[in-house]
Amino acid sequence: MGKVYLVGAGPGAPDLLTLRAAEILKRAEFVFHDALVHPQTLALAARARKILVGKRSGRHSTVQSFINKRLVDAAGKHAVVVRLKGGDPMLFGRAQEEIDALRKAGIEFEIVPGVTAATAASAELGVSLTRRGLARHVVFVTPRAGRGERENDWAAGVLTADTAVIYMGAELAEEIGAELIARGKPKATPLVLVESATLPERRVLYGTLAELPALALGAGGGPAVVLLGEVLRAARAEPVLTEKIEAIIKRA
Amino acid sequence: MGKVYLVGAGPGAPDLLTLRAAEILKRAEFVFHDALVHPQTLALAARARKILVGKRSGRHSTVQSFINKRLVDAAGKHAVVVRLKGGDPMLFGRAQEEIDALRKAGIEFEIVPGVTAATAASAELGVSLTRRGLARHVVFVTPRAGRGERENDWAAGVLTADTAVIYMGAELAEEIGAELIARGKPKATPLVLVESATLPERRVLYGTLAELPALALGAGGGPAVVLLGEVLRAARAEPVLTEKIEAIIKRA
Repeated sequence: MGKVYLVGAGPGAPDLLTLRAAEILKRAEFVFHDALVHPQTLALAARARKILVGKRSGRHSTVQSFINKRLVDAAGKHAVVVRLKGGDPMLFGRAQEEIDALRKAGIEFEIVPGVTAATAASAELGVSLTRRGLARHVVFVTPRAGRGERENDWAAGVLTADTAVIYMGAELAEEIGAELIARGKPKATPLVLVESATLPERRVLYGTLAELPALALGAGGGPAVVLLGEVLRAARAEPVLTEKIEAIIKRA
Repeated sequence: MGKVYLVGAGPGAPDLLTLRAAEILKRAEFVFHDALVHPQTLALAARARKILVGKRSGRHSTVQSFINKRLVDAAGKHAVVVRLKGGDPMLFGRAQEEIDALRKAGIEFEIVPGVTAATAASAELGVSLTRRGLARHVVFVTPRAGRGERENDWAAGVLTADTAVIYMGAELAEEIGAELIARGKPKATPLVLVESATLPERRVLYGTLAELPALALGAGGGPAVVLLGEVLRAARAEPVLTEKIEAIIKRA
């Protein structure tokens, strides 16, 4: 019986992978990966058969059970099986259903954490999510529900938090803005929408909560996080330029 | 003029560093690091002068201004200066004061995100912080205030969240437990205290909110996060064993 590694690929740039993840990919025989994993990250798994199992919202339940089954089957035949997910598997990565399936099947597994989009976006902006005297309470939420999933009160968290990061928020920008303003979040709350954080095609859109729907029109459909709270007031119009250090990837 | 890199060293294990951070450390001439950074991570900066600038609570304000000054001074003399912090710099890493000082001095800087303790602890437990149908609202808070810092209502966030991660919570376990229970958080809320996540000396203590003070007595003084919420009900008494992949560090 093999072992399954649930691995966080990080926020986008291939050199924001961890050393541990890179080492596991080199040993991998099978890699089941999301659509958004960078080609250079996949290339590290030189020996592996790579299978795209990216899923779209609304088709979740069918596809998830299929992924679970494939992971279990692959572990029956191969020593090193990797499930490679964007960001960190444990934050909006839907890892639990795969973990439960592996446990039920008695398959050994290990989870390798990754850099999540929230802190990567924060790093690019040069604005810390926490700030002494101003923000010590950060919330990560998503308003997006899977098919058949109960509604959750994502807005309650955003209302009480010093800093909020809304995952998968760009598509629902209008509802998010309306709900938060209706429940008393000030319209002028500083807000930044970061799309495709850490990648060359990233877009960083600055505004206020009231401007969120308009900002979202400027987004291009890539994975996006919305950051809001007083700390964002310090966000500059020019995000910190990130050097591209690809040499280590090429050498790996 | 040099450039300053604010780099997240990750949660503890040296192979949970990012490839980008490893590459920058190899080029570093000066490394100012926290007390908790792993010796193997520091060893990657083979050419650098390494300076411990770890600080203890209560002495924050004096020491922080000194660190700020040293970073600015070092960038005046060296091309690659690294400020290496445990976890992710942008989550309870006190990065903003250093960023502000660098901006004020006109020094170029870049922030390299890292894996934060919350997701690393979650990975070790095999319990996702989010879970379809159960948890889509995660809060990261700290009840610890620096000297002269105003009180914040950290508890409000924990009360509304599906899953809460309390950073630097073990020392204040009694106050945390009392405050949350007084404000209506159920005593039976599943809770796990993870100390020194991802390191060989880690301790994982399972219980409920009511048991937090007792669990904290079993902690050994290492950096600890407290995780609580319904998702933790799935935490097993046996945490997932993490393979030690140190070879890549030795080779690097």
